[in-house]
Amino acid sequence: MRLSKFFMPVLRDDPKEAEIVSHRLMLRCGMIRQETGGIYSWLPLGFRVLTKIMDIVREEQARAGGLEMLMPTIQPASLWRESGRYDDYGKEMLRITDRRDNELLYGPTNEEMITSIVKSSVQSYKDLPLNLYHIQWKFRDEIRPRFGVMRGREFLMKDGYSFDLTEEAGREAYNRMFVSYLRTFAAMGLKAIPMRAETGPIGGNESHEFLILAETGESGVFFDKAFLEKDWSGVDIDYDDAGAVAGVVKEFTSLYAATEDIHDPAAFEREVPEDRRVSGRGIEVGQIFFFGTKYSKPMGCAVQGPDGKEVYLQSGSYGIGVSRLVAGIIEASHDEAGIIWPQPVAPFDLGLINLRQGDAATDGACEKLYEELSNAGLDVLYDDRSDRAGEKFTRMDLIGLPWQVVIGPRGVKSGMAEVKNRATGEKTDVPFDTLTGLMLDKCTEVYA
Amino acid sequence: MRLSKFFMPVLRDDPKEAEIVSHRLMLRCGMIRQETGGIYSWLPLGFRVLTKIMDIVREEQARAGGLEMLMPTIQPASLWRESGRYDDYGKEMLRITDRRDNELLYGPTNEEMITSIVKSSVQSYKDLPLNLYHIQWKFRDEIRPRFGVMRGREFLMKDGYSFDLTEEAGREAYNRMFVSYLRTFAAMGLKAIPMRAETGPIGGNESHEFLILAETGESGVFFDKAFLEKDWSGVDIDYDDAGAVAGVVKEFTSLYAATEDIHDPAAFEREVPEDRRVSGRGIEVGQIFFFGTKYSKPMGCAVQGPDGKEVYLQSGSYGIGVSRLVAGIIEASHDEAGIIWPQPVAPFDLGLINLRQGDAATDGACEKLYEELSNAGLDVLYDDRSDRAGEKFTRMDLIGLPWQVVIGPRGVKSGMAEVKNRATGEKTDVPFDTLTGLMLDKCTEVYA
Repeated sequence: MRLSKFFMPVLRDDPKEAEIVSHRLMLRCGMIRQETGGIYSWLPLGFRVLTKIMDIVREEQARAGGLEMLMPTIQPASLWRESGRYDDYGKEMLRITDRRDNELLYGPTNEEMITSIVKSSVQSYKDLPLNLYHIQWKFRDEIRPRFGVMRGREFLMKDGYSFDLTEEAGREAYNRMFVSYLRTFAAMGLKAIPMRAETGPIGGNESHEFLILAETGESGVFFDKAFLEKDWSGVDIDYDDAGAVAGVVKEFTSLYAATEDIHDPAAFEREVPEDRRVSGRGIEVGQIFFFGTKYSKPMGCAVQGPDGKEVYLQSGSYGIGVSRLVAGIIEASHDEAGIIWPQPVAPFDLGLINLRQGDAATDGACEKLYEELSNAGLDVLYDDRSDRAGEKFTRMDLIGLPWQVVIGPRGVKSGMAEVKNRATGEKTDVPFDTLTGLMLDKCTEVYA
Repeated sequence: MRLSKFFMPVLRDDPKEAEIVSHRLMLRCGMIRQETGGIYSWLPLGFRVLTKIMDIVREEQARAGGLEMLMPTIQPASLWRESGRYDDYGKEMLRITDRRDNELLYGPTNEEMITSIVKSSVQSYKDLPLNLYHIQWKFRDEIRPRFGVMRGREFLMKDGYSFDLTEEAGREAYNRMFVSYLRTFAAMGLKAIPMRAETGPIGGNESHEFLILAETGESGVFFDKAFLEKDWSGVDIDYDDAGAVAGVVKEFTSLYAATEDIHDPAAFEREVPEDRRVSGRGIEVGQIFFFGTKYSKPMGCAVQGPDGKEVYLQSGSYGIGVSRLVAGIIEASHDEAGIIWPQPVAPFDLGLINLRQGDAATDGACEKLYEELSNAGLDVLYDDRSDRAGEKFTRMDLIGLPWQVVIGPRGVKSGMAEVKNRATGEKTDVPFDTLTGLMLDKCTEVYA
């Protein structure tokens, strides 16, 4: 993509309304724009990150047996009366009346709808197990929306739901999602720590939330240092092997980890040696629940079991905050100069900076490399604008692409580009003819 | 995908509520499910088609210079007061009041929002031209929703918007989208005929709608047979060459084509020789508008031109009914037995039918071919269920994958599979060892 043809309205100054760093940086980079309180447009740069996150979620969901579908944003109130949650949900639910006075609502989650779908479609235990998910916009009418897309009113979520015949099979489904979440966040270049959690309005008796560490995180967290030493990206697994999956869950849940609201200092001291006790801050990016028959029973979602008897299905639900993750990743990965994207979710793999736009030799070298890099399958943002060098550097640091390739008249003479690693600041001179190969290696390395 | 692990709740009987064939077939195949009047869930089979359509739209938009972004579903009413459309839009607009008594609405289209985004982000003519699009759910509160997703209340649309400095440049942007729509529909295996159209509530002075032909279409259409003889898939073009683009537009708009509401029988007879006059029925799947300054003026969307003077931007908007297309394609392509998907939008490339599930030799041959076909990059739906052959054939015909590969004990003995073309019904025996190569050729042929 040529910057001259891209739409990336970078702000010169920090926006006053932003209270947290991710909100400030997303506005400054032209990733998002607020339309009204807690409701945002995703401009092309932000949309690219959203897409990369969705792609990673989809890939890992498919591997773990999840089937993608798409439920609507608007739901009938009657559905929520069946489960008894219509009145419970309070003012955070956006309630709507249509022209025929039907009561509707903008879905904040989909347990009721998916249970009703499975109820009407599945007759026999032979059709199980099922794991269905969608990635769809949801609405939560916060009284005071703030912190940008970290706590927006209209937000994008992946939510998945499992349906099994027995509690044991249901717990196995929960375990598969637990492991798939470890793998999903690792594939984004994140360390997400699973912690036992309250179940809140979703309900049920077992829940874990996944938090990524960030100094500016919303919650205090206390955990065993062993989490940081684990090779997260290496957690590979055969999802059909329930024992192996349970083993991974056990490995991760046997270590102490807790958010401040349920932290137990005595247990922390008892279970974790002093030199392994870590406290910090985190941001919740996913949560999973096993709630058994909480929805299937009131809604009558049952099938005939092998013995001919009716059995209420055992279910769990599994959420990832897709739009929230974009902000969460920035909170976890930035510096004074701007964002530092983990490679797998970066809006472009690299930025190509032409230091002397209009100089025939420099333009020629840049165009040639732009074509080469693009043909190699890399996503390149080519800064072909005529701004001065300082402005180009500042902007490229701000938007935080993992690599910068800088080409000016001097480099053209010597046949060298300067390659900068955004995260470390390290700069290397690289000959033009080995540049594409090097970038391809760097950008496709498994993120560790 | 193994059918035994897929979620495709096929109905045995025709659903009574379906008045048109696409609605009936989508329900029967388990592609969609109604949640309340005019609001549908997309089950995995339907979601796959939706995804294929979105992929094709995105590819062609990128080629024509469109940048993808994502605007929210909920908009503030204040924005629509600026353009004067808040009161005009009537009861089809779903109006919402949030907990703080702010007036919101579920967006039926996005001219106001995108104009406001461009207004706040673009200062100079140097930032133009711009062509921004998104694919997002919209809402139209129909008094009597029916015909399934053909005329749903919550529906998925691609809507794009162009911004240019001069009327001439604006018309060139319109022309690019005109040509990109021809290419987009052709890439889906469709013949879509552009027809001059009324501008309706979007406004402006120039508009074309694109209709695909279907015997069961909603509108009567009259057109020159030359449209049918054109090699639509061959319309390749350099979008930077405004003259060439205008040439294609002229070629297509100089032929007579009109829907019944603006059909002029005298002109039809005058302009089209008798043997080239075709009348039929069609379904609108896209519409484009050039409306100049209709929104930029009242909303104050202007930039400094090269001479320093303020200039209101020239705009158009460009819609494709993504969810409606799924139904439209079925209306255009089905028979007594079910759907006949054009290859590019088929939910799977082919169906592999195991005629004797449980027979070791047949299972072995099927598993081997399933692996080979999948590894070759083909999307295979493998019917590995234990239903009897007749049921499998009926179901596979119903869901309409372009190719069926049938393997039974007799074929295993002779090393042959039966390959059936769903559209023509033609059957051929193909040796196992050449099957994958053949299917790869058939499924990746450019659709003509």
